[in-house]
Amino acid sequence: MAPRNPLNIGAAARAMRNFGVSRLRLVNPYEVAFREARSAVASGEILQSAEEFPGVAEAVADCSLVVGTTAVGHRDMRHPLRQLESGAGLIRAHLESEPAALLFGSEKFGLSNQDLSHCHWLMRIPLAGPKLSMNLGQAVAVCLYELRRDPQAVRKEPERVGRAAAEDMERITALLLELLRTSGYLNPVTAESGEDKVRRLVRRLDIQARDAPVWLGILRQLAWKISEKRE
Amino acid sequence: MAPRNPLNIGAAARAMRNFGVSRLRLVNPYEVAFREARSAVASGEILQSAEEFPGVAEAVADCSLVVGTTAVGHRDMRHPLRQLESGAGLIRAHLESEPAALLFGSEKFGLSNQDLSHCHWLMRIPLAGPKLSMNLGQAVAVCLYELRRDPQAVRKEPERVGRAAAEDMERITALLLELLRTSGYLNPVTAESGEDKVRRLVRRLDIQARDAPVWLGILRQLAWKISEKRE
Repeated sequence: MAPRNPLNIGAAARAMRNFGVSRLRLVNPYEVAFREARSAVASGEILQSAEEFPGVAEAVADCSLVVGTTAVGHRDMRHPLRQLESGAGLIRAHLESEPAALLFGSEKFGLSNQDLSHCHWLMRIPLAGPKLSMNLGQAVAVCLYELRRDPQAVRKEPERVGRAAAEDMERITALLLELLRTSGYLNPVTAESGEDKVRRLVRRLDIQARDAPVWLGILRQLAWKISEKRE
Repeated sequence: MAPRNPLNIGAAARAMRNFGVSRLRLVNPYEVAFREARSAVASGEILQSAEEFPGVAEAVADCSLVVGTTAVGHRDMRHPLRQLESGAGLIRAHLESEPAALLFGSEKFGLSNQDLSHCHWLMRIPLAGPKLSMNLGQAVAVCLYELRRDPQAVRKEPERVGRAAAEDMERITALLLELLRTSGYLNPVTAESGEDKVRRLVRRLDIQARDAPVWLGILRQLAWKISEKRE
């Protein structure tokens, strides 16, 4: 909607590209801003194929769902207002069979009441306070991220990182204890209670399986160095 | 990490403000960029109180969780890599008791392997392709949005908009049928099957309770106008 700043048009296009959305439609953009955005070096396919429309009606003509984005919605609106988290699900479901349009306002004035009258409902990005507003590129990025968001990913853990087996942990503990004794850190008199403390200390390290041999090597090297000195 | 562009520093600060995060720490920023960002008109509290550090170690010294953000992670990393959707939950849980740091790379080079070595794990924003990258402000906005995202909001429907009761729908149907007959749209011979069609047609309109009286008024007015002409 009437974007004035070529950087903002470019930022919106970049956000679209990042999240796999390709059809950018500009309503009544400032000639100069659009031309500049298009001629920018990094301007990609999205900007090259962006279309211009004189009004919202023409821009969304082929869409069976039109959703307006709004900051806080202090306007006297009769539109249902959904928070992004819940609205995105509805848009996703709609997109499975039919095209939908997501409407963003101009940097300065947002969407007018007339623009909003073309919308089936409105969507609000949850911000930290009532007087805040997002810049265009960031708003586009956050909305498209939520649209593409994978709820399953919450359960997907990263490639399993194995923890060192108890056997390795005990080997590391034994080597460390030997080191602490030979270095004089552990007092031979109170050594037994000290041993337990060290064992717990090592267990809390939460060492990965692949790192266990590295630690064993380090400890052996230190033990060797100390014993060499004593001889 | 070594941001070069004052607009990007400002965009990151604005994203932070929008999502209620306040402590911005810059590692080795370009003097001029930082000064310019700070002196920008819209520069708020976050930029004014932003701190500068010579290295990652100093910047994250008081944080017990350090998470690096990365584009795709083609690097040979030994770090666990989590997708934003799942990583954000862990960061949220950590923040309940202790501070955490989210690390963003410079616009040009991202985070170096040395920067990454300060991280407990890495987090990836899911983008549409392997060669894409986000601009700094958008990446900050998307990460902080996900951190503040309210999973409960998915179940929160907008203020219940009541649907018109069957009684009103039938009244509307009756008035419309009368109109269709008097206007000659419905053929009296086939009128009965036509009635059912119109009833189904009206039911599919999904009229809201508060709009039912408006539609009844409109239909009555039309009926009146047509009857007036006939007399």
